[in-house]
Amino acid sequence: MKEEKMENGSKKWGFGANEEVNTALDITIRGILTMVMDNLDAGDKRQIIPLGHGDPSAFPCFRTTHIAEDAMVDAVRSAKFNSYAPASGILSTRRSIAEYLSRDLPYKLSSDDVHLTIGCTQAIEVALTVLARPGANILLPRPGYPFYEARAAFSNLQVRHFDLLPEKGWEVDLDAVQALADENTVAMVIINPGNPCGNVFTYQHLEKVAETAKKLGILIISDEVYDHLAFGSNQFVPMGVFGSIVPVLTLGSISKRWIVPGWRFGWLVTNDPNGILKKTKIVDCIKGCLNICSNPSTLIQGAVPQILKKTKGDFFMKIINILRQASDICYDRIKEIPCITCPHKPEGSMFVMAKLNLSLLEDINDDLDFCFKLAKEESVIILPGVAVGMKNWLRITFAIEPSSLEDGLGRIKSFYQRHAKQQ
Amino acid sequence: MKEEKMENGSKKWGFGANEEVNTALDITIRGILTMVMDNLDAGDKRQIIPLGHGDPSAFPCFRTTHIAEDAMVDAVRSAKFNSYAPASGILSTRRSIAEYLSRDLPYKLSSDDVHLTIGCTQAIEVALTVLARPGANILLPRPGYPFYEARAAFSNLQVRHFDLLPEKGWEVDLDAVQALADENTVAMVIINPGNPCGNVFTYQHLEKVAETAKKLGILIISDEVYDHLAFGSNQFVPMGVFGSIVPVLTLGSISKRWIVPGWRFGWLVTNDPNGILKKTKIVDCIKGCLNICSNPSTLIQGAVPQILKKTKGDFFMKIINILRQASDICYDRIKEIPCITCPHKPEGSMFVMAKLNLSLLEDINDDLDFCFKLAKEESVIILPGVAVGMKNWLRITFAIEPSSLEDGLGRIKSFYQRHAKQQ
Ligand SMILES: Cc1ncc(COP(=O)(O)O)c(C=O)c1O
Ligand SMILES: Cc1ncc(COP(=O)(O)O)c(C=O)c1O
Repeated sequence: MKEEKMENGSKKWGFGANEEVNTALDITIRGILTMVMDNLDAGDKRQIIPLGHGDPSAFPCFRTTHIAEDAMVDAVRSAKFNSYAPASGILSTRRSIAEYLSRDLPYKLSSDDVHLTIGCTQAIEVALTVLARPGANILLPRPGYPFYEARAAFSNLQVRHFDLLPEKGWEVDLDAVQALADENTVAMVIINPGNPCGNVFTYQHLEKVAETAKKLGILIISDEVYDHLAFGSNQFVPMGVFGSIVPVLTLGSISKRWIVPGWRFGWLVTNDPNGILKKTKIVDCIKGCLNICSNPSTLIQGAVPQILKKTKGDFFMKIINILRQASDICYDRIKEIPCITCPHKPEGSMFVMAKLNLSLLEDINDDLDFCFKLAKEESVIILPGVAVGMKNWLRITFAIEPSSLEDGLGRIKSFYQRHAKQQ
Repeated sequence: MKEEKMENGSKKWGFGANEEVNTALDITIRGILTMVMDNLDAGDKRQIIPLGHGDPSAFPCFRTTHIAEDAMVDAVRSAKFNSYAPASGILSTRRSIAEYLSRDLPYKLSSDDVHLTIGCTQAIEVALTVLARPGANILLPRPGYPFYEARAAFSNLQVRHFDLLPEKGWEVDLDAVQALADENTVAMVIINPGNPCGNVFTYQHLEKVAETAKKLGILIISDEVYDHLAFGSNQFVPMGVFGSIVPVLTLGSISKRWIVPGWRFGWLVTNDPNGILKKTKIVDCIKGCLNICSNPSTLIQGAVPQILKKTKGDFFMKIINILRQASDICYDRIKEIPCITCPHKPEGSMFVMAKLNLSLLEDINDDLDFCFKLAKEESVIILPGVAVGMKNWLRITFAIEPSSLEDGLGRIKSFYQRHAKQQ
């Protein structure tokens, strides 16, 4: 029992905030984009051009298919999906995802391999929670998706970064992976198609990644939230294809392919034909973790089998075509802006990484300064590279309405011209 | 770099499962109900009577209001809620919850006090995560809702239990609270209306709880997921009424009052007119936590303002009336079963606690054994008290269709008669 007073006479409370949470917060994309947007000038009456985040759902040309909307409405009207769902999800929904993903695999997934999550976000949360144990470390790509860093910090998983190599189309630096791994390394993460690089790994490269992970005795977490959003020469190949070389946790969602990130539905799938994840109790632990978490809405679980079954190729083609067109615009316009260069033409996902050449600019200190001033002067939002681990780079989203994209890149060009160093 | 082989020649993998997760799993209601259900006899062709969990949504008489269904359909059809939402939720939705909850408070909540969560489940998750720090402990009620124990274990928060007193209508044993608290105690949890006890705290008792917490310098987490489900003589009073005595985190959801637990929408609200939670950075930490978690579906966020505004009193009255009728049936029928006694008539929520008198039974070892054999012989599911911290008690749900409830309690009576000790 205590009843102390603080020096200033106010009550002394016995609680305080968890420090680890606040450390993790500083490194999220949402946090940094908020900082950038704080610089917007309310006096600028032009439209704000959002090239900062991967969510084109507000643009009419990216509206999801009516099939998905109908499936949700049917789920609501049926009144069959108002109850709690089992921890790993409704069986028929898990089965439909197993079938959907098996189309691209040399073996068949079963519903037992599929765990339903609240977007790919919760799949990441669960994967890192399950693997965390005292002293363990995980290998993450640089540049990457900082939610991994945030969740690793939260779970006390030590992070080691391997580079993606711009001069090799952003392939994994496998020598670095081998040099970084030790007996406490539990996994490596790849993101394919890539965020933030917009690359798509080849079959051959993925096979090498698998062989490397096998040699090191670590599993692969393959973030395929942008699955099938590939519009260059490399076809999308799921990492699960190599599941018999090394166990793979595949993370995915309907957020990007169906352009409904607000619907919050994803999956964590064990691609593990040799049953290693069962033997090592990882599967039990995934189930345990989902049992002490909130689960995805039963309504969306009820709608997903219809969404997967009925969505037609023409919807996917339309989206891919807009993304291809937009990525071309992005790549071409960037060439006209001397202070930023793009080492690799984007061929998938919604992003491209561009390098900032500060020596061509008069009064810009770094990538953050560039993004802050750009927001203020041109009402264009871009993510500073530092947010994804690459100081003085920029991550630019091309997944917006093409005419807005043209407008935005035009404004970046004007911004450059105003800030260019006099020769 | 490692390339070891296990003794049996198989590869040695460098990963393993997080032990803490599996510890937490063993104590969830879902886990224990699954164990009970494993005893069901497939040969029994009668309907299974589910008196184990608090989800009546599958029964036609408990179908949610068409207002809620219409609001969800409108949200889908509008295509305005397909995007990611801000970490704490859409502003207009937070505002609508602030207004809804302020109706029962002596002061006005603002939208800043409201954080949207994936059901009350995620609100619990966030509250315990935010308060966890090395060495901290939290006071939980016994009997209680074991998800708190599971999340506390997961966050390394030490748990200390205070009793709810059956002879005092399940009021908090405030002497025990005072004896348990020390300088590392961060909070105490109350659940009102009560799960598993079905009690509703009086204004006077809640005020005493607030005074006690204030004296101890700890905050109150008030789980009001069953808010307004009160049908006895005590009216439901939100703990937030005493927010100027002690800071209160109010946790709630639409799961129970609207009978849509599968829709996964809830809130964590700071009832803190003195701004103590802001000063102690708890509010920042709540935001940080929601920033590194998955958030509730934007669709349901879009539907909630309409649901709150348009749902009529007649829907709520209908539900309350069914619950009152069902609780009467439950209480009366239990009186006819000598081996179980109910110390306090339920007046809220969906549950009642009943004490098992093993000395009247021939061949039943404990509450688990009772529930296992009951499932096997009568296809009736009941939660053993041990799951909620009370060995040799039972938690019985009365929130099912009244005719099924009569049937279920009749079967428990037959079960008793078959197993009764010969005098
Ligand atoms: C690489 C990556 N993983 C995961 C996610 C989260 O996906 P979801 O919206 O399905 O939770 C994103 C979202 O942008 C992402 O870029
Ligand atoms: C006391 C208590 N708190 C929280 C919850 C979880 O509520 P929700 O379904 O809104 O996540 C429940 C569900 O039964 C409960 O009984």
